[in-house]
Amino acid sequence: MSDLVTITGVVGSDPRHNVTATGLPITNFRLASTRRFFDRATGAWTDGETNWYTVSSFRQLALNTARSLRKGERVVVHGRLRIRAWETGERSGTAIEIDADAIGHDLSWGVAVYSKTSGARL
Amino acid sequence: MSDLVTITGVVGSDPRHNVTATGLPITNFRLASTRRFFDRATGAWTDGETNWYTVSSFRQLALNTARSLRKGERVVVHGRLRIRAWETGERSGTAIEIDADAIGHDLSWGVAVYSKTSGARL
Amino acid sequence: MSDLVTITGVVGSDPRHNVTATGLPITNFRLASTRRFFDRATGAWTDGETNWYTVSSFRQLALNTARSLRKGERVVVHGRLRIRAWETGERSGTAIEIDADAIGHDLSWGVAVYSKTSGARL
Amino acid sequence: MSDLVTITGVVGSDPRHNVTATGLPITNFRLASTRRFFDRATGAWTDGETNWYTVSSFRQLALNTARSLRKGERVVVHGRLRIRAWETGERSGTAIEIDADAIGHDLSWGVAVYSKTSGARL
Repeated sequence: MSDLVTITGVVGSDPRHNVTATGLPITNFRLASTRRFFDRATGAWTDGETNWYTVSSFRQLALNTARSLRKGERVVVHGRLRIRAWETGERSGTAIEIDADAIGHDLSWGVAVYSKTSGARL
Repeated sequence: MSDLVTITGVVGSDPRHNVTATGLPITNFRLASTRRFFDRATGAWTDGETNWYTVSSFRQLALNTARSLRKGERVVVHGRLRIRAWETGERSGTAIEIDADAIGHDLSWGVAVYSKTSGARL
Repeated sequence: MSDLVTITGVVGSDPRHNVTATGLPITNFRLASTRRFFDRATGAWTDGETNWYTVSSFRQLALNTARSLRKGERVVVHGRLRIRAWETGERSGTAIEIDADAIGHDLSWGVAVYSKTSGARL
Repeated sequence: MSDLVTITGVVGSDPRHNVTATGLPITNFRLASTRRFFDRATGAWTDGETNWYTVSSFRQLALNTARSLRKGERVVVHGRLRIRAWETGERSGTAIEIDADAIGHDLSWGVAVYSKTSGARL
């Protein structure tokens, strides 16, 4: 029903910012989430498989994401999963998107200086 | 079993940083999460009740949180719920804690400049 | 903001069913969630601390929960956290509630025979 | 990192049960999750888009799922997302899987009679 997820991972591409014909700001980026697990055989934490997502943000979140995020940075993303079939000419596939409610730099891996922007979120 | 939550809210107190006798860095702060809901009667988004949490972070996340967060900032926090009964002399109560896995400034409300710190998370 | 959680645990009390003066069906029960973790020292899975919640359900979910759940059964519960201060005369405390969106018997621990009931959920 | 989701939806296919060459019980089924949203224009709750998942369960959960679930039933599923690229001869695509930790019939839509099975989960 709600299909909400929280993903921590690495920004895989510089954010792309657009404004729709109706004036809606949109920012997209790719997000890679690699599972870490404790390998009992080796007694060490190890990288597992990687999930790739396309994160979409809108309005004030889109504006601030475009100004704040760069490829390679660590983030935490909370939002709604959307699984979409796509087709362009002869090619088709499945896109796994997250419509973001919140995006932040992950302070597990770095420090951040934050400045409030004007404008409410909703 | 896992009791994982993701909370977006306002930092309610400046973070308090400590180092345990065994050398473990810990940073705590209060987090207020106010529900927003669409009031069909008035046709407007409205504030609902507020949940208060105590967020705890450890190791590199504790160090970076102490350096990055200030009271009044908007954050997104992902972690494990812990409900603890406490007693100090004549008083007793229940604490609702979140052992944080990830903390970030919420880009829905501001912009951030991020710098990686050395040291892996695990 | 949304404060949604999913908890797997044991039903700690037989559900209590009521109907409010306005005709709203409500069913409550206690839920105990015990963390399991892999103890590297012993090389075995071990019980950790236990979180206790009060789960509340409404409407059709309340009616079906009252008919289906018994103390001691394993369940999975998805819903919204509510942290409430309470006071009755000289005593006061904090209640941690879950307003349930979905409740089901956990098939990790048993089998179930299911029968649809009439009536939509919303 | 953890990529955990909770999905409520409709079982889209009768579960398929297998045992691997190494003796591991596996049960798979398709799950359809349709978003419900409040349409302010019409003032009514409406169906939105549908996400399709393949749910995988293992060990005791696999055995109990195969015995308990039927196509068309409402369930709540909690587990880990896995996004996998696949290729069989000339065709390729993306599979969105959930490795289930817990599966239960959703009591919002029906009643259930539950019987514990022997055998621990881990």
